[in-house]
Amino acid sequence: MHPYTKHHSESVSAWGEEKLLTAIRRWLGSASPRSPFGMGDDCAVLPASRGKQLITVDPVIYGRHFDDTVSPRAVGAKLLKRNLSDLAAMGGRPTTAVLALTLDPRVSRRWLEEFYRGLAASARHFNVALVGGDLAQTDRVIAASLTLLGQPAGPRIVTRTGSRPGDWIYVTGVLGGSLRTGHHFRFTPRLAEGAWLARHTAVRAMMDVSDGLAKDLHALTPRGAIPILHPDALPRRSGASLVESLSDGEDYELVFTVGTRSDHSAFVRSWHRAFPRTRLTCIGRFMRPGTEPSGSLKLAAFRGYEHLR
Amino acid sequence: MHPYTKHHSESVSAWGEEKLLTAIRRWLGSASPRSPFGMGDDCAVLPASRGKQLITVDPVIYGRHFDDTVSPRAVGAKLLKRNLSDLAAMGGRPTTAVLALTLDPRVSRRWLEEFYRGLAASARHFNVALVGGDLAQTDRVIAASLTLLGQPAGPRIVTRTGSRPGDWIYVTGVLGGSLRTGHHFRFTPRLAEGAWLARHTAVRAMMDVSDGLAKDLHALTPRGAIPILHPDALPRRSGASLVESLSDGEDYELVFTVGTRSDHSAFVRSWHRAFPRTRLTCIGRFMRPGTEPSGSLKLAAFRGYEHLR
Repeated sequence: MHPYTKHHSESVSAWGEEKLLTAIRRWLGSASPRSPFGMGDDCAVLPASRGKQLITVDPVIYGRHFDDTVSPRAVGAKLLKRNLSDLAAMGGRPTTAVLALTLDPRVSRRWLEEFYRGLAASARHFNVALVGGDLAQTDRVIAASLTLLGQPAGPRIVTRTGSRPGDWIYVTGVLGGSLRTGHHFRFTPRLAEGAWLARHTAVRAMMDVSDGLAKDLHALTPRGAIPILHPDALPRRSGASLVESLSDGEDYELVFTVGTRSDHSAFVRSWHRAFPRTRLTCIGRFMRPGTEPSGSLKLAAFRGYEHLR
Repeated sequence: MHPYTKHHSESVSAWGEEKLLTAIRRWLGSASPRSPFGMGDDCAVLPASRGKQLITVDPVIYGRHFDDTVSPRAVGAKLLKRNLSDLAAMGGRPTTAVLALTLDPRVSRRWLEEFYRGLAASARHFNVALVGGDLAQTDRVIAASLTLLGQPAGPRIVTRTGSRPGDWIYVTGVLGGSLRTGHHFRFTPRLAEGAWLARHTAVRAMMDVSDGLAKDLHALTPRGAIPILHPDALPRRSGASLVESLSDGEDYELVFTVGTRSDHSAFVRSWHRAFPRTRLTCIGRFMRPGTEPSGSLKLAAFRGYEHLR
C-alpha cells in the first residue's frame, strides 16, 4: 500500500495534531496504557525493575526497510519484531516500548491507522506495553524508531563476547533471500529460542543475524581465531544462493557458539525436543589461522549489509 | 554550519560503517560506557532500578529543530536538553539514553563529529550515560531521536493531572522569542527547579512549556475550569510580544499549579532562596467559566505549535 494520499482531506495533516493523537490512542487500544503509566504526560512512568534491564533501538524507514509492496500492518509489526530479535539475541523478554514517528504531512490516515494497528497487534501478541512516543513532521520522510526495554528471561544474559578458538558455531532457521520472499516482515523473532539458549550454559556467545552472516559473524569471533564455515552446511532458504545466504541480511535468526567440551549431541537432541519445528545447524567453528581444512569458506570475500555506503 | 559536504571524501559514507562506529565511540568518550553495558551488542544492559522509572523520547530534525545557523555541538546538546526538560517537568533526574540517528550519506564527518561531541559534553554535564544507538541512512534527512530514561529525583513524581478549579498557575523564567534569540538551543533544562518543585506538596501538577503556553496549558486545565491569565503578568522575553510569549513554543520553562489553601508568599520566598536568579511568576488561575474578571485573556484565541499541519 502506498503511504501517501493525493487528497489533502485524507492526509494526516488535515486532521491536525490533537485529533490525530486521539485516533492513535484508539488504534493502539489496550497495547497502550493510560498516563501517567503511558502516553499523555511529559514522560511515561515505568515500574521498578527487579533485575537488570535490556534496551535496544531500531527504526523502519520508507524506501529502506519497507516499500509499497509491504502492508502498513506488516510495517508496524516489523518495527517491533526487529527490536524483539535484538532482545532475543541476549536471552531477553520484552516489557515496554516508546515510539518516535517522523511523518510527511501527505501520509494518508488509512496508512497510518493500519501501521498503528499492526504495531498494536504485535505488541499485544508479544506482551509489550507501548507507553509513549513522539510525533514530528518532515517532508518526504516516513520513519519510525522504536526503543524497546526488556529483562533477562532467565538467570543469564548472553552477549556477543565469550567465544573461544575451537568453539562450534550454530545458526537457527535458514538464511538468505529475506527481502525477495517477504521473510523480512513475516518472520517471528526468536524470543523463545533465545531464552532457551541463554539457560544453557554450553552457549557462550550469541547475536542475531540482521546484516548477513558474513558480516555479523565478525562480532562473535574471538581474538586469534577466524570463522571456518563449511559451504555445504549453510542452511539456505529455498532459492537462495550461497552468497545470498551469507550477505543478504534481514534473516532475524540467532547465531551462537558452543564450546568443544560440551556434549553437542545431547545439546542438539534437547533443542529438537524444545523446538521440533525449528532447524538448528552447526555451520562451522572458530579456528586459529593456518589450521583451516581445505574447502572451507573465506568469509572476508563476502560482505553483508553496510548501513552507510 | 551546513551539514552537507560537496566532497565525497569528507562525507560519512566515504568512511563506511565500521570506521564510523569506531569514530563515534571516540567522539562520545566517557559519555558512553562499553558493552555489555553500552554500545556494541544487540542490546545495552542497564542495572536494576530501585524505584519507578521515567521514559521520554524527542527528536531533532534538520530544517525543523535546527538549521545552518545552529552549530552542530549545539544541535547535539539540544537533543539531550529537550528530553531533559520533559524529565524536569515530572521531577525526575536522568540516568541513561539511547540514540537513533538517520543520516543522509552526504553529511560531512566534521558536522557529525561536532554533533556527537556536543551531545557527549552535554551528557557528561547532566550525568547521562549514552548506552546504545542505531545508525540508518536515508536521503535528504538528518534526524536524531533520543530516548531518555530517568528516575524520580525525590519521593514524588508530578504529573500533568491534579489541578483543581481555583488553583493558581505559575511559570518559571520568561516566554516567547525562543527561536529568534537562540534560547531554543542555549537553554538550561529546569532539572533542579523541577526536582525542587516535586518535593513541595503545594505543587499539584506540572509540565514543561514546549509548544507555547496557550496550547500547553490545556493539558494542565482541570475539568470544569478554564485558565484565566492576566496579560500584564506574563513574563515575556525581551522583545517578545504577548502573542509570541503565548504561542512561539520552545520555551523549555516549567508551568505548574498551586492550590488556593497553600501559603503562597512562603512558597515564593522559599523559591527565591533556592533559585535567586530564576524568575517565578504567578500568571493567573483556573476558574469556572463565567466567573472570570474583565480584562482576562481568552486563551482559545491563541494557538501554539502544531506538530502536524
